[in-house]
Amino acid sequence: MDFSSFLTSLGTSFLIFVVLMLLFTWLSRRPGNSVVYYPNRILKGMDPWEGGSRSRNPFAWIREAFSSSEQDVINMSGVDTAVYFVFLSTALGILVLSGLILLPVLLPVAATDDNVKAQKTNGSNQTFSEIDNLLMGNVKDESPRLWAFLFATYWVSLVTYFLLWKAYVHVSVLRANALMAPGLKPEQFAVLVRDIPPAPEGQTRKEQVDSYFKSIYPETYYRSLVVTNNREVNKIYEKLEGYKKKLAHAEAVYDESKKTGKSKGLRPTTKIGTLGLVGRKVDSIEHYNEKIKELIPKLEAEQKATLREKQQACAFAFFTNRVAAASAAQSLHAQMVDTWTVMEAPEPRQVIWSNLKIKYFQRIIRHQFVDITAVKTVLEAYLPQIALIVFLALLPKLLLALSKAEGIPSVGHAVRATSGKYFYFTVLNVFIGVTLGGTLFRTFKSIEKEPNSIVKLLASSLPGNASFFLTFVALKFFVGYGLELSRVVPLIIFHLKKKYLCKTEAELKQAWFPGDLGYATRIPGDMLVITIALCYSVIAPLIIPFGVVYFGLGWLVLRNQALKVYVPSFESYGKMWPHINARVLAALILFQVTIFGYLGLKKFSSRALFLIPLPILSLLFAYVCKKKFYRSFCDTALEVASRELKEIPDMESVFRSFIPPSLSSEKADDDHFQDALSQVSRSGSFA
Amino acid sequence: MDFSSFLTSLGTSFLIFVVLMLLFTWLSRRPGNSVVYYPNRILKGMDPWEGGSRSRNPFAWIREAFSSSEQDVINMSGVDTAVYFVFLSTALGILVLSGLILLPVLLPVAATDDNVKAQKTNGSNQTFSEIDNLLMGNVKDESPRLWAFLFATYWVSLVTYFLLWKAYVHVSVLRANALMAPGLKPEQFAVLVRDIPPAPEGQTRKEQVDSYFKSIYPETYYRSLVVTNNREVNKIYEKLEGYKKKLAHAEAVYDESKKTGKSKGLRPTTKIGTLGLVGRKVDSIEHYNEKIKELIPKLEAEQKATLREKQQACAFAFFTNRVAAASAAQSLHAQMVDTWTVMEAPEPRQVIWSNLKIKYFQRIIRHQFVDITAVKTVLEAYLPQIALIVFLALLPKLLLALSKAEGIPSVGHAVRATSGKYFYFTVLNVFIGVTLGGTLFRTFKSIEKEPNSIVKLLASSLPGNASFFLTFVALKFFVGYGLELSRVVPLIIFHLKKKYLCKTEAELKQAWFPGDLGYATRIPGDMLVITIALCYSVIAPLIIPFGVVYFGLGWLVLRNQALKVYVPSFESYGKMWPHINARVLAALILFQVTIFGYLGLKKFSSRALFLIPLPILSLLFAYVCKKKFYRSFCDTALEVASRELKEIPDMESVFRSFIPPSLSSEKADDDHFQDALSQVSRSGSFA
Repeated sequence: MDFSSFLTSLGTSFLIFVVLMLLFTWLSRRPGNSVVYYPNRILKGMDPWEGGSRSRNPFAWIREAFSSSEQDVINMSGVDTAVYFVFLSTALGILVLSGLILLPVLLPVAATDDNVKAQKTNGSNQTFSEIDNLLMGNVKDESPRLWAFLFATYWVSLVTYFLLWKAYVHVSVLRANALMAPGLKPEQFAVLVRDIPPAPEGQTRKEQVDSYFKSIYPETYYRSLVVTNNREVNKIYEKLEGYKKKLAHAEAVYDESKKTGKSKGLRPTTKIGTLGLVGRKVDSIEHYNEKIKELIPKLEAEQKATLREKQQACAFAFFTNRVAAASAAQSLHAQMVDTWTVMEAPEPRQVIWSNLKIKYFQRIIRHQFVDITAVKTVLEAYLPQIALIVFLALLPKLLLALSKAEGIPSVGHAVRATSGKYFYFTVLNVFIGVTLGGTLFRTFKSIEKEPNSIVKLLASSLPGNASFFLTFVALKFFVGYGLELSRVVPLIIFHLKKKYLCKTEAELKQAWFPGDLGYATRIPGDMLVITIALCYSVIAPLIIPFGVVYFGLGWLVLRNQALKVYVPSFESYGKMWPHINARVLAALILFQVTIFGYLGLKKFSSRALFLIPLPILSLLFAYVCKKKFYRSFCDTALEVASRELKEIPDMESVFRSFIPPSLSSEKADDDHFQDALSQVSRSGSFA
Repeated sequence: MDFSSFLTSLGTSFLIFVVLMLLFTWLSRRPGNSVVYYPNRILKGMDPWEGGSRSRNPFAWIREAFSSSEQDVINMSGVDTAVYFVFLSTALGILVLSGLILLPVLLPVAATDDNVKAQKTNGSNQTFSEIDNLLMGNVKDESPRLWAFLFATYWVSLVTYFLLWKAYVHVSVLRANALMAPGLKPEQFAVLVRDIPPAPEGQTRKEQVDSYFKSIYPETYYRSLVVTNNREVNKIYEKLEGYKKKLAHAEAVYDESKKTGKSKGLRPTTKIGTLGLVGRKVDSIEHYNEKIKELIPKLEAEQKATLREKQQACAFAFFTNRVAAASAAQSLHAQMVDTWTVMEAPEPRQVIWSNLKIKYFQRIIRHQFVDITAVKTVLEAYLPQIALIVFLALLPKLLLALSKAEGIPSVGHAVRATSGKYFYFTVLNVFIGVTLGGTLFRTFKSIEKEPNSIVKLLASSLPGNASFFLTFVALKFFVGYGLELSRVVPLIIFHLKKKYLCKTEAELKQAWFPGDLGYATRIPGDMLVITIALCYSVIAPLIIPFGVVYFGLGWLVLRNQALKVYVPSFESYGKMWPHINARVLAALILFQVTIFGYLGLKKFSSRALFLIPLPILSLLFAYVCKKKFYRSFCDTALEVASRELKEIPDMESVFRSFIPPSLSSEKADDDHFQDALSQVSRSGSFA
């Protein structure tokens, strides 16, 4: 790619971004679009245009984003989102601090040499562009100028360590503050107990669980909720809810027809055969009413049967204070380690019920198996490029399904696991794949002659792909963040649905409900950019401003989206951070190894040995981080759990928040749960 | 070694054993020797000859050993000793069950072939003896008879898995029972807190510790004991105790001289110069009295200074019930993982005070450093044989010192660490060293020609050393256990000391005090034998009866010693077992790999592939054991800690048991400790 086509591509991307931003300014001020541009505010019962968002100034949203504090983000979107911004600003900081030294030093050092011109006149058959003058490739072999690049590698590494350390401390404090907040979090009072041994003769499961915990925690144990197999009851419940929605829809259609046409209106009909396409026509409202009447007693019967007969060997145990629950979650309870295994309860809305019953060793095997065979084979195999594109679209769902198959009990954990798999996939296949692929044909014959090491190959192919990645990053931020901010696609879908499909309020809400930020795919994407930016930072320092814009713009756009648009679907209090930290370090090590290899190609090998301490230092840094911080992200520190609560917790509501909707009876009838739910100390007093 | 010299060596050893056993029968019945043969009983205030030990029947002690139950061993010598017997009987069981199949099957299979004779007539220049007819070496290459040896390997492995599993369950139950026993164990009420951050302005260390724990455990926290640097006070204390002993000795000498000689007696004198050899002569009694009078106020001043000024960043925290302490020891307390690290308190008598103050990361570094560089270099380097013998004598002490340098806070833990190092040293240097060394000269030239793999080399050199190891094991059990039982050496030393050195009761007791079983060196010795027995079990099944006698005789003799002689110096409730289990499995894997290599030498390679599942199975078995049992050996299960106590614990005595002798004041004066020891809830009531 020559310089002019690179500029063209860059200009086009920028133009698209400006158009999308103006579109956003115009569209977001129309009241009918407020549910698309301010759903988070609306759902929190706030005024969508609070703070002057509706002003004619197209940059008002930028001012708002800059003036928002971290606490605002936590209030509107939770700790996980705040942690995501810590990541964005850390990445930004690494690139800005690196750039401050690297750009003024390395660009002149490279530009004033003339390796490229020399090779050109020597009749080398490779093509070069103006950009190449600014790359490390323009420095002659064995030139003492290479020292500058060596020291630059140290500078980037030290900056990364420093900012990662500061970020880890910051996230750790964020997490601690959130966990010690005086507000009531039901999951802080509960633990998940799995691998319960068979109940002794003459004891029900709940009696067994209650007597076990009562004897260990005579003062702080509240009661238990035995997990049941809800497959059947969920089916009936979903069917029932489906009919209720259809009934509401049919009634809305009927009401509308009364208003518009004849005075009596047109009663909607439906066909009762397959998919509503064949079969006898019936009156929809009557038909759905009948179905609902049929299903309600069926659901109640199934609820009773589930609670009585489908109890699993696992339960939630509730405690009357947070320290007791936090300490129980970390303690070994049974002498046989594979029975009565206890862990922190996930948030109620995060629970993956069907995974709870999986046994100890089966969990280990699933975890190992999924890790070792399926994923690694898929991830590390080289896939043809056509298949890759189709696959990339399906991948997040596939990886999420694989993560769930590991037997992970909470959604947040599954998302973290997916994110990890996706990161390694992206880095391995896209980054290394493109880098190597681009030069593969060129170097294929030389490999055949002398089997080059992968490091050398990677290093030698990096500079050739620099302009590809510059364009890639620019496209990603201008077009990607432009689309993100303008929300053109969700807007169109919402208006289409509103016009042709939605009849009831619930259907309308479903049409504009924004979902969450989507960490599982968003973070790996960002990781790819920081990996590229780090790896090219010294070889092609021009990448740095692009990375800065990517993370700067990302911070700005997503700040707006987090405050106004997305609604978090769960909260893990920053448990993602250790993984982010590890992956940035992985990228850093890749960078350090690449530079080592590249200096070797530049016949600077003996002095490149000065780089050997760097990967070791990175591993050491990762180890120290793990030892110093990691456990506080797995377990809740007791000093954190021991903070006073705002008010005495209502244990009954804590308990009820864990009952799945398909089992909760509207009558709030205690007898209803007598089979699976314990009644220990229900009328006790809790301090 | 030919057959007759082998029999001679065996016979001599047996004769020595018979002589030593008769000596034991004769000597142990003399009342003057009771302190040598029954010290454990005497120290427990029991009649030494209880149970007919003094009968004229030389086999009475055998009857007694057999009739003693596991509970007797636990009562007399603790759980660690009982666990040691589980190890001995497991090793015995593995060898007996293996032998029941291997001896009747493999010996005829080997004896009826004629590879040895064939090679002899072929003019091979190696020498063979009658024993060789019974070895695997007598089976011809590629013979289908080798299938029997392959299946024998499976049999031995399966027997080992089965018995190790049973033993692990058994030890786990022993440990649980001991931990849940209703008797008072002070360490179950305490935790060790390390890495305490600097105390805030205006707060003393003990106020800091108390307020921290009080806020987390408002109901169960009792008080704290801040660890002090006791180096100075210990020096003075030991000096004082030394003078007290010398004074008692001098007074006893004076009393004796009054009885024997002149009516007035001869007052003993001492020289006050270096080592009591030079300098002015003074009256001993007066001199020591003066010194003691000088030191007492000095000690008291130093005690006060220590408690006030030499406080460390670590403390013992005491709880009013066992569940609270057990749970606290397993929980993360501070958000910053490297501060307020909490672990189970060691037994008071096991505490290594000087190691408590070492910081979190320093502990990690010391552990890694000692593990990686010093020990591994020393252990894995090949040492000349002369140096080896000198070194072997010093090794246990050296390894113990290294283990202590790791910053391990308890003696029991240090002993376990030492035992591990010693085991790997023994196996690596003695077993492999001798095996390889014996054939090194023979095979040296062939190695030079084609670099053989270590497995093949090991396999090919094993059979040649079979008779060496037969003799080695026989010598070890007949002479070793003969000496052990007869206690000839301690007896002579005791009588010499009694006659020429000891004057006071305390000196006499010190002279006969037996010490403990010495796991740190005893278990690695046993491990060497089980490693040899396993590795030769299929190649030279004759080793099995020798192994059986070793562990059978060992069980018998040590049962006697445990019940009557040795006094355990600490109790870890079987924490050694996971290490024993891992090392037996390591030996098993060595055996499996060796047979694989040996079958390869026998040109049975393709069928030897059937052995590949075995090492994998062994690793899997080790993994499952670790997952199922290991954590209950690190942490105390709460169901175990929650058992009722016999009586309400006297928290004050629990607390006092952790005060080191050099700091405990005879006045039991509370004010004395006001500086380092907290006074929270001292007058509270504990349920």
